[in-house]
Formats: sequence, structure tokens, C-alpha cells
Amino acid sequence: MVEFQHLIDLNDLSVEQWNEIIQLALKIKANEKAYSEVCKHKILATLFYEPSTRTQMSFQTAMLRLGGQIIGFDNPQNSSVSKGENLMDTIRIVSGYADILAMRHPIEGAAKAAAIYAGCPVINAGDGGHLHPTQTLTDLVTLQSEKGALSGLTIGLCGDLKYGRTVHSLIKALSMYPNNKFVLISTKELSVPQYIKDWLNSHNCACQECYSLAEAIPQLDVLYMTRIQKERFASQEEYERQKNVYILDMEKLFHAKQDLCILHPLPRVDEIDLNVDKDPRAIYFKQAVNGVYARMALIMTLLQSNGTKRAPISHHCAHISCNNPNCITNHETYLEKSYKENGDLLVCEYCDERQLI
Amino acid sequence: MVEFQHLIDLNDLSVEQWNEIIQLALKIKANEKAYSEVCKHKILATLFYEPSTRTQMSFQTAMLRLGGQIIGFDNPQNSSVSKGENLMDTIRIVSGYADILAMRHPIEGAAKAAAIYAGCPVINAGDGGHLHPTQTLTDLVTLQSEKGALSGLTIGLCGDLKYGRTVHSLIKALSMYPNNKFVLISTKELSVPQYIKDWLNSHNCACQECYSLAEAIPQLDVLYMTRIQKERFASQEEYERQKNVYILDMEKLFHAKQDLCILHPLPRVDEIDLNVDKDPRAIYFKQAVNGVYARMALIMTLLQSNGTKRAPISHHCAHISCNNPNCITNHETYLEKSYKENGDLLVCEYCDERQLI
Amino acid sequence: MVEFQHLIDLNDLSVEQWNEIIQLALKIKANEKAYSEVCKHKILATLFYEPSTRTQMSFQTAMLRLGGQIIGFDNPQNSSVSKGENLMDTIRIVSGYADILAMRHPIEGAAKAAAIYAGCPVINAGDGGHLHPTQTLTDLVTLQSEKGALSGLTIGLCGDLKYGRTVHSLIKALSMYPNNKFVLISTKELSVPQYIKDWLNSHNCACQECYSLAEAIPQLDVLYMTRIQKERFASQEEYERQKNVYILDMEKLFHAKQDLCILHPLPRVDEIDLNVDKDPRAIYFKQAVNGVYARMALIMTLLQSNGTKRAPISHHCAHISCNNPNCITNHETYLEKSYKENGDLLVCEYCDERQLI
Repeated sequence: MVEFQHLIDLNDLSVEQWNEIIQLALKIKANEKAYSEVCKHKILATLFYEPSTRTQMSFQTAMLRLGGQIIGFDNPQNSSVSKGENLMDTIRIVSGYADILAMRHPIEGAAKAAAIYAGCPVINAGDGGHLHPTQTLTDLVTLQSEKGALSGLTIGLCGDLKYGRTVHSLIKALSMYPNNKFVLISTKELSVPQYIKDWLNSHNCACQECYSLAEAIPQLDVLYMTRIQKERFASQEEYERQKNVYILDMEKLFHAKQDLCILHPLPRVDEIDLNVDKDPRAIYFKQAVNGVYARMALIMTLLQSNGTKRAPISHHCAHISCNNPNCITNHETYLEKSYKENGDLLVCEYCDERQLI
Repeated sequence: MVEFQHLIDLNDLSVEQWNEIIQLALKIKANEKAYSEVCKHKILATLFYEPSTRTQMSFQTAMLRLGGQIIGFDNPQNSSVSKGENLMDTIRIVSGYADILAMRHPIEGAAKAAAIYAGCPVINAGDGGHLHPTQTLTDLVTLQSEKGALSGLTIGLCGDLKYGRTVHSLIKALSMYPNNKFVLISTKELSVPQYIKDWLNSHNCACQECYSLAEAIPQLDVLYMTRIQKERFASQEEYERQKNVYILDMEKLFHAKQDLCILHPLPRVDEIDLNVDKDPRAIYFKQAVNGVYARMALIMTLLQSNGTKRAPISHHCAHISCNNPNCITNHETYLEKSYKENGDLLVCEYCDERQLI
Repeated sequence: MVEFQHLIDLNDLSVEQWNEIIQLALKIKANEKAYSEVCKHKILATLFYEPSTRTQMSFQTAMLRLGGQIIGFDNPQNSSVSKGENLMDTIRIVSGYADILAMRHPIEGAAKAAAIYAGCPVINAGDGGHLHPTQTLTDLVTLQSEKGALSGLTIGLCGDLKYGRTVHSLIKALSMYPNNKFVLISTKELSVPQYIKDWLNSHNCACQECYSLAEAIPQLDVLYMTRIQKERFASQEEYERQKNVYILDMEKLFHAKQDLCILHPLPRVDEIDLNVDKDPRAIYFKQAVNGVYARMALIMTLLQSNGTKRAPISHHCAHISCNNPNCITNHETYLEKSYKENGDLLVCEYCDERQLI
């Protein structure tokens, strides 16, 4: 079986490859017409096992603007899954129809599992609460475009830092570039997980925790806003007391730098006041447009990578079950379990769940 | 922000512009091949917040036949709306993906609201019970094609004239052309609203009310049939007594002119007997095909109109609420309320609801 | 009204026409690029009144790879059907949008009914439990490709031979080629219907019934596997006792010929052990890919057939009702009932239900 280059985790690619994709995205943005036929006669299948219209339309737009075509579904009830077919069979068949797949799935590790069986490149368009690498690529393209660099920045991340996969992924990505400083703005209950703090330490990144957006904002070059769901506060009283602390409004923005970049993965609910939209520092709608360019660059890159061979998983340990009940290996039981060793930990190659050896 | 030319209400355009679009539609119909690449590399997004497969497929066909491409959704549950996103954000983002939007929405004024925020032209594909201008364009293209003129016609409108938005819109459109006469055929309960009668008066249009299709039919050049829902009759007895009065069958058609044109916006239920379909005067299926040409002409026209600047709303009155509970301003509360003055009335710029000053 | 060439039942076409389509499919497979623009500016509408993502994507892929475009729906709730529109009206309108239709419908005979009213060719993509001719075309293309011939083969069919429409259709198709022998492998309760046995007799085909896959397998050139639903066994005990008899695994395969071809219409549940997938004799995933080539060849052939005129139905007998409650004539009551005479039987032209004269 031929292996293809996939994008399951941003770390499947080297930082040099990220930079190539980012530069390509900016070249496309500068001269879109030059790329309007590069994927002619190619087909992208968007397999959305849970609906996410925005992300699906971004992928579809990217492929169409490259001159390619699209097939796919957005509704698990309509797929053969409802007839009892396993993921492996679906992927084998659909990759016989399409030249590249973008898959969204509620189960963690599903995209990795798909990559094992696909007869074409696979892009992870979100696997449960685990990874969403094209959002991070979008964020990097936006910062490169707006700031001219991905280094030497003071980046504030505000909101739900505990569960926000886009936050974790962006921190890990920006830690690979020199002289970035992170300001983590959240309630204590919603601060980043320990493994992210460990990661920042091991990459020698400056990092500061802060409980007030207003206090943190003056030093920032970048502010990455995310939503805090009401039910994630410790109590209703806590919610009432704190909710405004993490809402960005013109008053807080008054003390920010003139060249601050405000990002948000969207959809936004009320964590950014609508008046902020008119401020030139609010670039979250530009960011959504950059998401199309990022995906165009990614699709082009993966389609040109045939010949590259890499095994999606490599360290089989059939007898050990993953502790994560939402891991794909606990749902599609024919999958070969596989773990990387990391000190005294086993890390699931599908969902990154860690367990002691 | 650049403003684009939209089609929210047919009255956004002048009668000269209608005529240009109608003529273009007929030119396309006569030589479709010549237009098969004019929208190459352009993308139409069909945003259907309520399903309407027919209308959506008509728009999609129009764009594909112009060489363009399509994205979109047909199911509000699958959209980001279900995550609490407001309409403004959705429109800003999707108009970053597509070159032109066609939107169907159950709330009145939604298309106007979309036009305020869109970064591309917006076509109203139906906003609640309010407007559906591309149906009226379709009707005009069909009459121009079949009759060779939009003036000097005796037009019967039959069925539910009280709630039928396509009827109201067609009356208003044809009243702009000289020497048209309207025959309004319905029960008393379902006759046209007073404002339509006022409109006809103010445009010096001949108009006659009639309670019998059979009586009205001999004088007609055009018969526009619509469905009367059973529950709109005054009572079950009334329904049983009257239902056949408004059904077109071969017996009634016997007394009609040989060049009568029978139109219907479709879907038809039982208000036109199936035997009528074979009569050459039945042109409602041709009308559906003309709908594609009308939309092709409209898409071409709006895409070529960049540079035209017009503000979708203009008369802000933030402190006055619209009395229509189904008006978009009562659902998307960030919208700036806006009213035109008409004598002693304020007319909502979104949904056309009128209230006393 | 112009009549078009349709594919409702494989028997609408002659064996010579089957062979032309099969040869065209193989030519396309050998040199796909040469066909990448042959349907440019043509539109396929996929009208799926019940979801079947796999089949729908196969048709869409076929049309896109021919350079054509696609519209359609996969959800009856979103179609105008939910507003009470009859099938005839929907088909008339959609065939005004598209150049060719592929229709899936839960009611038997629906595709035939569609062909009566369509203004373009119609492909039956499955009508209830009745017919699914493009699956059979796919099977034939696969056998021609793998075996180099459709004659002189010993073909085992295993599983649910009573209800499996793909099995019936394949038997009827292969019986038209010389020197094929059929081995029917199933429980007694799930053996082929009498009319299939009659068919094989009348075509002088060798045929053998067998209750054990293990016993049958050594002589086979082709093994066509299908799923037996648990509830189709006589009892729970019967299921437990027999379930493994009809599961293909490596042990049973050990005794098979080296050039056996294992087919399956997919989706597979557990009737083929996953270990079999790695065996080169397992060609069911190749078969799915061949389904795209078969559909490409079919679409090309039907689109080029304009001018051919044939009436979809011909023997009207308005006063006789079809005994099949799931026949389209019992759901769309305006349809003209029609029966072919076969000895002392009347055979419904829509659903093939037979009744005594």
C-alpha cells in the first residue's frame, strides 16, 4: 500500500514545512488568479461525521478556488455508518472516489485511523476535543500576514484555556518560534493543563498567568480570544461575578497597543463586544478569510506530495487499551493499538491520552 | 466598507433595470452556450435557513450553467447558528468565501439585514412571508417570453390573494407597465390586502374583484393560479362549498382565450387539475425553466455591478421597535432599527411593517 | 414530448449495449484523462428520496470526473415533496434544471414513473427492494476487468438470496452469457425465489444449491458475498447455530482457487472477516472504484443517446390495481397502470409484481 502525506497533527510536519505552507498561503492571497486551475480535475471529499458548516464551507471554497471539485456529506445519519459499516471500509471506498479527504469526527483519533486506510491524503478537520490543525495553520497565516513574523511576539490567550483545543495547539505551534512570550488569561479553574505548562518550560518560553484581561492587555502584540461556556464557571455566583472580566470591549481595548491583533477562532458569542468589530485591530473576520488561503496551500502541498511515504502509526501494542473512552480505538475495535513511550508514560498514537507503563 | 448592488426587494432596482435583466434572461435562453463561462472562478453560496429544495436547485443550476461554482447549506441545524452565532457574523464570514450570496430565511427582513454586513452582493431567495423577488422576476421573464410584452394585458390572479407574497409582488411589478388590468379572483376572506388596492389606485391600474374563476376566465390574457390552504376558508362547510370554485380544470378552461398563459409559482397541489398540464396554455413548467434564466441574468448583473454604492438602510431610529414580531430587528437585536416616513406612517426598512408615528 | 434513453432496469438495454458500456468503462479506467471534459457544461441531478451516501457519492464522482457538474438532495424532508407535491411535478421541474437524473426512492417502480415524465434521461439508483441496475453494471465491469470475460464462470452467491436484489439482478445478467454455472449458497429459508430458478431453467444455466460455503468454495471462480440480517434466520437458536457457516474467513478461503474473485456490493458488516481484506482475491474495494467507471460510461452513453425514442410504459390497463402495496402506482395515483402479459400472469410494468389474469 502506498502511503501518503497527511495532516492529522500539525507535528506531522516540520516547522520548515509549516513555513512553506504559510508562505504559499500568502503567495496565493497576493495573486489568487495564478492558482485558479492548479487542482483542476481533482476532487476533495469532505466527510463531516458531525456538522460544522463553517469549516466544511472553508474547505470547499479552498478546493473550488483551486479549480477542483467537491463531494461529501455533513450528516452521519445519511452515511453508510448508519448501516453498521466501520470507518475503515468507508474511508477505503471514499478514497477511491476522491483525491484528498477532509474529515471531521466526534471521536478522538478518528482522522489518524482514517489515514491508515486511506488511498489518498487525509486532512484532520477536527477530531473530537483533540486536534484541529487547520485552525492553527489559519492562525499562523494570519499572524504572519499581519505581523510579518511569528517570533518576538507577546501573545495573550484569553478565556477557556483548559478545554480549548485551538488554544493548546496555537501555544505549541508558536513555542517553536524564538522569543515569543505567552500571557495566559483565565480563571483559575480554566487555566491551561499542566502538560502545556510543561511544554512551555521545556521549550524555554516565557510565560505568565493572569486573572484579568484588563491588566494583561497593555503589553500584548496578539490577543487570542475564546469563549467561556457559562457551565464551566465554578458556580452561578462565580459566573455572575466574573463574566465581564473576560469580555473584550472598547474600554479594555483603550489601553492596548495600536498594532494589537485580536484573533478569535469563531463563532463568537458575547466574549467580544460588537463595537470592537469596527476597530482595525479586530482581525477575526480577516482571519476567517485567511483560513481559506491556509487550506488552499495545504491542499496543494498534500496533493503534490505523492511519493512521500510514512506510516501513520508505528508502535503496535495490541494488548493495551487506551484509557480514553472517547478514543477511536475503543470504538473501532479492529484498529491496532499503538503507543509512543515518553519517559514512564505511554502516549496513545491516536488520541494522545497518556497512561503509566 | 464597499457597498454592493443587492436584490432584496424588486424595488431596489428601477423598471429599466428590470427590463435589462429580463432581456438578458431571454438572450441567455436563446443562446445559452455563449454564457457558459461568464462566471468561471466565481462562487455562489446558497444559505438556506429553511429548506426549499426547488428554489435552491434553481439558483445552483443558474450558477453552474454560467460556469461558476456553488457552496451552501440547506439546514439550519447544521449551521453555526446552532452554536449561538448571530446572522451578522455568519454573513461576514461566508461573504469572505463566496462572490455572491442567495439567502432564504424564515424571518422577515433577514435578507436586508444580511446585505448590510455582506462583503458581496446578496440575493433575497425568500424572507418569511415578506418578499421573494426572484419568483417575480421569473414571472416577468415568462410573460415577456410568451406574450412579447409586459403591458396591455388582462391578468387574473386566483386563489389566496391575502397571504400570497408572490401575488402581491407580481401585482406591484406589473402595475409599473402601462395598460395592464387586474382581475382579482378569490373568496372575500382571501381578497388582497387594502394596501395593494391602494397601490393599484395610485398607479391608475384597472382592477376588478371576482368570486368565480369560471366567470372571470373568458377575458384573461394571463391566469396566475395559487393554492388556497384548506384552513384559510372560514369554516369546513365553507371549504366544501367553495373548494371547486378555485380549481382550474378543462371545463373552466373551455371558455378561455386560445392564447391564455396559465402560470403557477409551484409547487401545485390540487388547484390545477392534472389534465390541464397537456394544454399548451399551461406554461407553469416552462415558467420553472425560465426561473433558471432569470437567476442567471440576475447573478451576472449583480456580479458586474461592483462599484455601485448604495446603503441598504438609511433612516435610523434606534429607539422605535418594529411592531412585527417576525421582523428580523426583533430577533437580531444589534441591528439598527430604521424606518421610512410615508405620510403619518413609519414603514420598517427591513420588513415593511407600518406603524403610526 | 421527446423520449429519452433511460436505465431503469438493466433489461431496458440489450446485451450488446451492456457490452458497449462495460467496454467503455474499461477504456475510461485505462485512460481517465481522455474523458475529463466530455460532460463539460452538463449537470447531473441526484434525487435521493432516501439517503444512500455511498451510491450518491459514486454518481457525483462519476459526473465530476467527466467534467460535468452536480446538483441534488439527499433528504426527502427538505424537498418539495413535504409540501405535497407529486413525483411527476418534481421530475418535470428538475429535469428542466439538469441534463440527466439519478434517482433513489423507497417505493418500487418510482424510477420508471420518473422516466415517463422526465425531460432528460433517468438512471434508477435503486427503487425500494426492486432494482439497482448500476450495482449490477458495476459487478459486470469488475468481472470483465478481473476475469477478462463474462462467460464460462462458476459463480457462487452466498448469503441472503431471497431478498437480495443485487443477487437476483446479477444472476439474471450473467445468465445472458454462455457457459456460466451458478452455485447458490444459503439457508433453506433464504434460498432464491422460484422465479429466479425458473429464469435459470429457461436460460439453460447450470445451477446447484448448497448449504455450506466451505463445501462450495473450492469450485468457484467468483464468490459474491452478501449479508444475512440476523432477523432473517428462522429463530435465535438457528442464528447462533448457522451464523458462521456463511461468514468468509481465511480458513474457508484456504480451499479456494488462487484466482477466485471475491465480490461484495458493500457495506459489509461481519460476513467477511477483516483478515480476508489483505488477500489479493478480495476485490470488493476495487469493485467500488469500478462502480465509478461503470457510472461514467453509463452517463456518457445516455447523454449521447438523444434522438432514441422509447415509451417507458406501453400496455395501459387503468382499471387493474397492482397487488404490491409498495408499488409506486399505489402511491402516485395519477399514474396509468400498465401490465405486460406473461402466460396467465399480468406483470406490473412499474414494480414487476405478478398477478393472475
